[in-house]
Amino acid sequence: MSFNLHHGIAVLERTPAVFRALLAGLPDAWTVSNEGPDTFSPFDNVGHLIHGERADWMPRARIILAQGASRSFEPYDRLAQVRESAGKSLAQLLDDFAVLRAQNLVTLRGWHLSDAQLALVGEHPALGAVTLRQLLATWVAHDLSHLAQTARAMAKQYRDAVGPWRAYLPVMDR
Amino acid sequence: MSFNLHHGIAVLERTPAVFRALLAGLPDAWTVSNEGPDTFSPFDNVGHLIHGERADWMPRARIILAQGASRSFEPYDRLAQVRESAGKSLAQLLDDFAVLRAQNLVTLRGWHLSDAQLALVGEHPALGAVTLRQLLATWVAHDLSHLAQTARAMAKQYRDAVGPWRAYLPVMDR
Repeated sequence: MSFNLHHGIAVLERTPAVFRALLAGLPDAWTVSNEGPDTFSPFDNVGHLIHGERADWMPRARIILAQGASRSFEPYDRLAQVRESAGKSLAQLLDDFAVLRAQNLVTLRGWHLSDAQLALVGEHPALGAVTLRQLLATWVAHDLSHLAQTARAMAKQYRDAVGPWRAYLPVMDR
Repeated sequence: MSFNLHHGIAVLERTPAVFRALLAGLPDAWTVSNEGPDTFSPFDNVGHLIHGERADWMPRARIILAQGASRSFEPYDRLAQVRESAGKSLAQLLDDFAVLRAQNLVTLRGWHLSDAQLALVGEHPALGAVTLRQLLATWVAHDLSHLAQTARAMAKQYRDAVGPWRAYLPVMDR
């Protein structure tokens, strides 16, 4: 499936409501438990998505669209949410994410991007030349990846509780 | 984390709304595409969850609770949803799932299961002796597993569209 702005936005606009439906009001045991050292809990995943709204996707899209002398992205801090989420409740994070995402999509839609603009190129600090189209497709896939990661982190909390059914649940050992 | 009926139901009662938030109204390109031969699309995942509501979790719980002469479960048909979903829209499946899940949780809550009941044993056709507690934990984990699977199947539709970012998205090659 090739990237299509309408299809991509259809996913991006749903993600905050998906995380809210999954996590809002859940007992903390589900939301703060992770998959082991150096992995994200559901809470961490939402914080990470918030950081992406602020520091990653739209700032990078602007760098590409500007086509200035430097088209290099700032390196992305994958652990920024540890600082930025400190002291916040999950309810607050879910609200923050919904507001930031909605604002970003208003801006994105307002750009009325042409195919020529989607083909413009920026410079990723590690990956090299990337197009705006690839950046936006990655934004979508990144949402879905963190949704899968959140569901997996939750499932693993019952790794022992399921007893022999673990053999039928590959998610437990992924 | 050991199984706790309150915590388990907290996940089970959210799942239909999570799938609705993720999938309702999405372009078909997202909802009918799978991960390759013999894998589930998002549509298939919802159909599979519906079949579980009808044929798996509660019928097996009843067999365990009855403690009759035969405590063997019916083998589970993992592909039943292909027949049962034929001709239905995704919107219909999302509605069916929500109704069936809500009905099952009314029944489950009404049982006011004791620890002694949760420790009762049934006979799985392949796995052998399993407790009611393990069955209910598996119901929860199975929801989360199919949520992760649905998000992964969607992410993979952009496997090529993300270009070099594929290296940072392990979900694409899982």
